[in-house]
Amino acid sequence: MNERRGRSGGRAARQAARRAGRQEVASYLRRTLPPVEVLDEEGLLQIEQNAEIILSEVGIAFQGYPRALDLWREAGADVDGELVRFPPGLCRSLVTATAPSSFVQHARNTERSVLIGGDATVFAPNYGSPFVTDLDKGRRYATLEDFENTVKLTYGLPHLHHSGGTVCEPVDIAVNKRHLDMVYSHLRYSDKPFMGSVTAPERAADSIELARIAFGGSLEGRTALVNLINASSPLRWDATMLGSAEVYASHNQACVISPFILAGAMSPVTVAGLAAQALAEALSGMAFCQLVRPGAPVVFGTFASSMSMATGAPTFGTPEGALATYVMAALARRVGVPFRSGGQLTASKAPDAQAAYESAATLLPTMMAGVHFVLHAAGWLEGGLALSFEKLILDHDQLGMMDVYANGVDMSPNGQAMDAFATNPHGEHFLGNGHTLANFENAFYRSSVADNNSFEQWRDEGSLTAAQRANAIWKQRLDEYEAPPLDDAVDEEMLAYIGRRKAEEPDAIV
Amino acid sequence: MNERRGRSGGRAARQAARRAGRQEVASYLRRTLPPVEVLDEEGLLQIEQNAEIILSEVGIAFQGYPRALDLWREAGADVDGELVRFPPGLCRSLVTATAPSSFVQHARNTERSVLIGGDATVFAPNYGSPFVTDLDKGRRYATLEDFENTVKLTYGLPHLHHSGGTVCEPVDIAVNKRHLDMVYSHLRYSDKPFMGSVTAPERAADSIELARIAFGGSLEGRTALVNLINASSPLRWDATMLGSAEVYASHNQACVISPFILAGAMSPVTVAGLAAQALAEALSGMAFCQLVRPGAPVVFGTFASSMSMATGAPTFGTPEGALATYVMAALARRVGVPFRSGGQLTASKAPDAQAAYESAATLLPTMMAGVHFVLHAAGWLEGGLALSFEKLILDHDQLGMMDVYANGVDMSPNGQAMDAFATNPHGEHFLGNGHTLANFENAFYRSSVADNNSFEQWRDEGSLTAAQRANAIWKQRLDEYEAPPLDDAVDEEMLAYIGRRKAEEPDAIV
Repeated sequence: MNERRGRSGGRAARQAARRAGRQEVASYLRRTLPPVEVLDEEGLLQIEQNAEIILSEVGIAFQGYPRALDLWREAGADVDGELVRFPPGLCRSLVTATAPSSFVQHARNTERSVLIGGDATVFAPNYGSPFVTDLDKGRRYATLEDFENTVKLTYGLPHLHHSGGTVCEPVDIAVNKRHLDMVYSHLRYSDKPFMGSVTAPERAADSIELARIAFGGSLEGRTALVNLINASSPLRWDATMLGSAEVYASHNQACVISPFILAGAMSPVTVAGLAAQALAEALSGMAFCQLVRPGAPVVFGTFASSMSMATGAPTFGTPEGALATYVMAALARRVGVPFRSGGQLTASKAPDAQAAYESAATLLPTMMAGVHFVLHAAGWLEGGLALSFEKLILDHDQLGMMDVYANGVDMSPNGQAMDAFATNPHGEHFLGNGHTLANFENAFYRSSVADNNSFEQWRDEGSLTAAQRANAIWKQRLDEYEAPPLDDAVDEEMLAYIGRRKAEEPDAIV
Repeated sequence: MNERRGRSGGRAARQAARRAGRQEVASYLRRTLPPVEVLDEEGLLQIEQNAEIILSEVGIAFQGYPRALDLWREAGADVDGELVRFPPGLCRSLVTATAPSSFVQHARNTERSVLIGGDATVFAPNYGSPFVTDLDKGRRYATLEDFENTVKLTYGLPHLHHSGGTVCEPVDIAVNKRHLDMVYSHLRYSDKPFMGSVTAPERAADSIELARIAFGGSLEGRTALVNLINASSPLRWDATMLGSAEVYASHNQACVISPFILAGAMSPVTVAGLAAQALAEALSGMAFCQLVRPGAPVVFGTFASSMSMATGAPTFGTPEGALATYVMAALARRVGVPFRSGGQLTASKAPDAQAAYESAATLLPTMMAGVHFVLHAAGWLEGGLALSFEKLILDHDQLGMMDVYANGVDMSPNGQAMDAFATNPHGEHFLGNGHTLANFENAFYRSSVADNNSFEQWRDEGSLTAAQRANAIWKQRLDEYEAPPLDDAVDEEMLAYIGRRKAEEPDAIV
């Protein structure tokens, strides 16, 4: 089920497809370009040594979850109350010994399954926002309808490879029941891979059970779910996350182990300090999963942002955040597990220039660092507090460009285009050249949102901003949405399970 | 005058300054990170070989300028009418033999002089727009007042290291005289380095003469001017550009030799095809400058964009453009001369999300490719047809972030922050930690435009977009503008020269 694949196959295949004139969108992106490094061997080794000092001397707190302490005691760690100190190298060796370097996350439509790790990059939408916003209705608390609309839109957007998880919080549904509706939405309105609930161990179990039903009654050992297990940084795990991680890992479902760091608050203000801490936290969390079930797929995650020195508010799309992404991606490669980070992040409250600068300044480093699993790849606004439907469309367009970028430079004879020069007069344009005509249709990425027309044409069409054009696009896409096929019996079984589970307990607000 | 400088001095000095708690802005940016490569040795060599085939078999037209044909004949090239075919390696060897790998462009304020080449990156504003636009007055033809305002704003923006050249076209001044007003503006309202006129050889000579006056009566061999010499791609130079280049080169002023390519029109549609052509064109132009004056400083330039397959309109911020920038920067490094490309380019008609996505997707590759001289680094809108005052401010903020990025990861003991972990309780924030307090002020780049406040605060302050905030900023900056000191006698001498030159000929429209 887990696989290691070389680069050349993907590149050659993509380039062959391009030469054949097809405009194909794969179920996930393959990178042919090597990841960018911003720190040398000496620097990375220093950070690894610092992480080991943190793990062995400062330790990590595993709070409110005695089972984790038992596992660590058995593994040879020093457990002092809820504080665990690890012999140097213990966490790392637990991870490198059994965690797969890549794995397939299966979708209920097998053509949508994605590779997480290796030269693959998987884009998933926004996660966790209590609000949604659009140009028509403005900002408001999200509802299940907003959630379903996001899933439906994501289903139709080809460069979002993944349906995501809590794409927004459906606050009109009780906290202890909304995970059932969210998981159902992903399985009913999409056939892309998705994320399970982590807000309680029993909700994790519900997620797995619904996936089992949707996959025809048995997962047969397949990894059908990923999740988001956040550390309570600094240097701490809580019972909710540990309990959910244990449920997933024991079922061979993938845990995305993510330190969540606003530098200055949850870590020191420096990139090297943040990196050592995040490495220590990620190693301890991934090692915990390996103790639960050796070989359980894990993803090394990092969410890192800087902050405003004026107000303490988190900031995004900053150079410090980009440097952290490059460093953490390199550290994850050295551990040998897939890496999650980045996205299209912004602190802006509107889908405006600030939102776009900050999003692009997050996405390009995400791509160039070789991140494998990219949460928040589209739709994120307001530091994650709101999902913007317009920004979902705008961001998605940028994701499509990453696909082209990742494919690198075509050095085939056709790519070199030497025949074009032999036949083109000096100073005359190439528009009618045979090489141009043969390649024009697929030569350049086609943006679905950018307006490249003249000023006069743009003005005559209403002087629309990019956000206004995106507004029309998402509404049209929602109008034209058609659900993927789902077996009626499967649907009924899922609904029956959900009805039963909802009836078992009263609504609760946690 | 020309220099090669190592990386470590700059980095250590900057990091020392950072540790000392100063927030300094240098007169130009130094990069400590190695440039990103997207093509391997084999690919680059193939493109170089293709360029030699173009130079030796297809040839380059030098039109309307017999002096260039004479120089090429003497140098051993095959001159057939106006078409020049070059023995393989001739252009390259002419450039590598005498062109400096880097040079200082002197400013009249010596503290503003910039290094062009090596590990330096110099940001210059928008160039060549016939229109200006702002949120108050909308889009209109540019005037000398707009030009002067742009120079004044650029003077006060610390991350624009250079005053630029034709920051916009002052169309209210006769074409044959506006260069005098433009050069005067750069020398009167700024003391940053700037660019001379290239629209006629005598206007190039005027530019040099005004610089001579402003520099105290003699340039003493110093390079005080750079320019923009565009090829009439494909594979062609015209008399205007050759004549201007000859004037500058013979006075040891720097020529930025720039193929101007909209792929599909002025070159084949592929990156590798575009690259071979641009290399051939740049080598032939730079070699011409070396024939004029061996050792004259030259910059290898490339302006490359893709196009809309629907309309043929140029497009910006695309992955194809980014790949071209990386490839051309690598080719220039192999020639061993400074490289000009990139900027913050967009086809958008407004300073909106499209403008920002496209600008960031141009700037980050510009930076990561290691471009030395960056024209259009701020203010460019509408495919270069308009300068936006709001975008000048927005783009400048992004340039400041590049400075932080270029400095890389601080691996000093303070950067590693290990003392912070030793004293911070698990799960408690670092805001009060001694390490945080000692570093907080200079830990993160301070954006001058981004709004990182809460939604409620942003709403209560008027729900302003980034462009609206930038509108207030540029107007305030212009209100507060103070001119740099200029000797009255120098000013009078410049004005007398300009008056005399303007009186010598009637107004003309070319």
